[in-house]
Amino acid sequence: MEARCSQLVLGLDPDPTQLWPRAAAGAPTTGAPAARAAAAVTVQCELLIDAAGPACVAVKPQLACFERLGDGGWAALATISGYARAAGLLVLLDGKRGDVPVTASAYAQALLGPTPTPFGELSGLGADAFTANPLLGRDSLAPLLDGAAASGAGVFVLVRTSNAGAADVEDATLEDGERLWERLARIVADLGRSRTGSSGLSDVGAVTGATEPQHLERMRELMPHAPFLLPGVGAQGGRVEDLGPAFAPGRAGGLIATSRAIADAYKGGRGDPARAAADEAERLRELAWTLAPA
Amino acid sequence: MEARCSQLVLGLDPDPTQLWPRAAAGAPTTGAPAARAAAAVTVQCELLIDAAGPACVAVKPQLACFERLGDGGWAALATISGYARAAGLLVLLDGKRGDVPVTASAYAQALLGPTPTPFGELSGLGADAFTANPLLGRDSLAPLLDGAAASGAGVFVLVRTSNAGAADVEDATLEDGERLWERLARIVADLGRSRTGSSGLSDVGAVTGATEPQHLERMRELMPHAPFLLPGVGAQGGRVEDLGPAFAPGRAGGLIATSRAIADAYKGGRGDPARAAADEAERLRELAWTLAPA
Repeated sequence: MEARCSQLVLGLDPDPTQLWPRAAAGAPTTGAPAARAAAAVTVQCELLIDAAGPACVAVKPQLACFERLGDGGWAALATISGYARAAGLLVLLDGKRGDVPVTASAYAQALLGPTPTPFGELSGLGADAFTANPLLGRDSLAPLLDGAAASGAGVFVLVRTSNAGAADVEDATLEDGERLWERLARIVADLGRSRTGSSGLSDVGAVTGATEPQHLERMRELMPHAPFLLPGVGAQGGRVEDLGPAFAPGRAGGLIATSRAIADAYKGGRGDPARAAADEAERLRELAWTLAPA
Repeated sequence: MEARCSQLVLGLDPDPTQLWPRAAAGAPTTGAPAARAAAAVTVQCELLIDAAGPACVAVKPQLACFERLGDGGWAALATISGYARAAGLLVLLDGKRGDVPVTASAYAQALLGPTPTPFGELSGLGADAFTANPLLGRDSLAPLLDGAAASGAGVFVLVRTSNAGAADVEDATLEDGERLWERLARIVADLGRSRTGSSGLSDVGAVTGATEPQHLERMRELMPHAPFLLPGVGAQGGRVEDLGPAFAPGRAGGLIATSRAIADAYKGGRGDPARAAADEAERLRELAWTLAPA
């Protein structure tokens, strides 16, 4: 983050019906629809990384957008993760996984590797970080955290998401007067206590939607050492200007994730998609870097 | 269920380090480890379906176990789903997905299809049902339910899972004295109200772990029309004998999912894995069918 003066994370949520013209043209002209779609999505993500990557520190592929392309989509995810890494970007896989312990271990293997088999070890996607859903409790998070620790990766646990419906469950008031997301925040802080490095930040982070910035101060109080992943800037209505409290521990305290604001920037009549994406990413990078305390 | 006199769901959680000898031998002897592992896992699942399938109504592939094999694992998942369908079994994909609405739509496309692309429509995995995580609230479930309704499929929403750690969050007491899982149960009942068919059962079901059977009566009170998916029988400690209240609406009220109890039945010195799996599945089928009200 220091080297790039950036807290920006490039969301990769490729939609095959919203491809940039060069990505659509980059697909093979023959072959099965799934293979052509996966190839086009790969080009789309590579063009996005080329354009907006220099203003970012990480990419955040949305697993659902690759899974809907089938096995070719899963292969594209691996290809794009490698492409991002070669461009100096971290890979933060957004799948919001959560399951009982034995299955959580399998998710850790899928996201991080390795998976032992009688035929040799499989490497997994080699994520630098990933998102996790805490509904199933601490024992469901433990294999994810242990897997992450073993491979030098981090986990961002959902605390308060950016969608309107988050109020239904995450905002439920508990008997002690706290909301459920405050309980989740306490779990994140607790799990991260022994995993805090010399930076003062833990490798157990929190997903804290940018659409409800009024909660950020309370979140910082509850999770002083957690890096915050802040989705929801742009299309979902969140504003970089409102995210100041996330950066209380310093500039590395918050990662601002945005996808459509960058990929669709050209739709405002700003011409070439790649140029518009580069300009918008640079604008957001500078805005966030200026805002955050040094 | 009537035709097969069964409420049993065959969990497919293949572990490449725990293959039946015939599955390990069924993999190609050369090639990349990932491809060999995916081939062996495919054989393992096919052998399990051959052996235990006749006593079951559905298979429940655990997505994590396929994802850890990479794109070949995702292809194996599609192959095995087709194999199960050809054996007359429904396919219940266990991925516990949950995300903001735009991403939830992409998960619906991945699990159910179709995904429109400029190159033609992609079919997705064509699930008959799948599991969903409700932490993100109603608007995150809506695209999953709508996708399911459009393709004649069902959704099982997590209410109270079978792991010990479920107590941390799902059992949190709310200000009105109810536990969070009761709130989730109310959401499930509410979402299913307009989706209840002539059977008296809704296409919005609930995942209600078999390890805490003392909650089942309360769950039935809150969700009189929801089919219950009951994981946790066998390795996790749940007992078929304790699941009676799930079947209050009739024999189709509960689906009993078990995986290791069947795949590992031979480990008790019972000889051939396929024969032991068939015997154990038949034993569980009969036990459940006898228990449930007609």
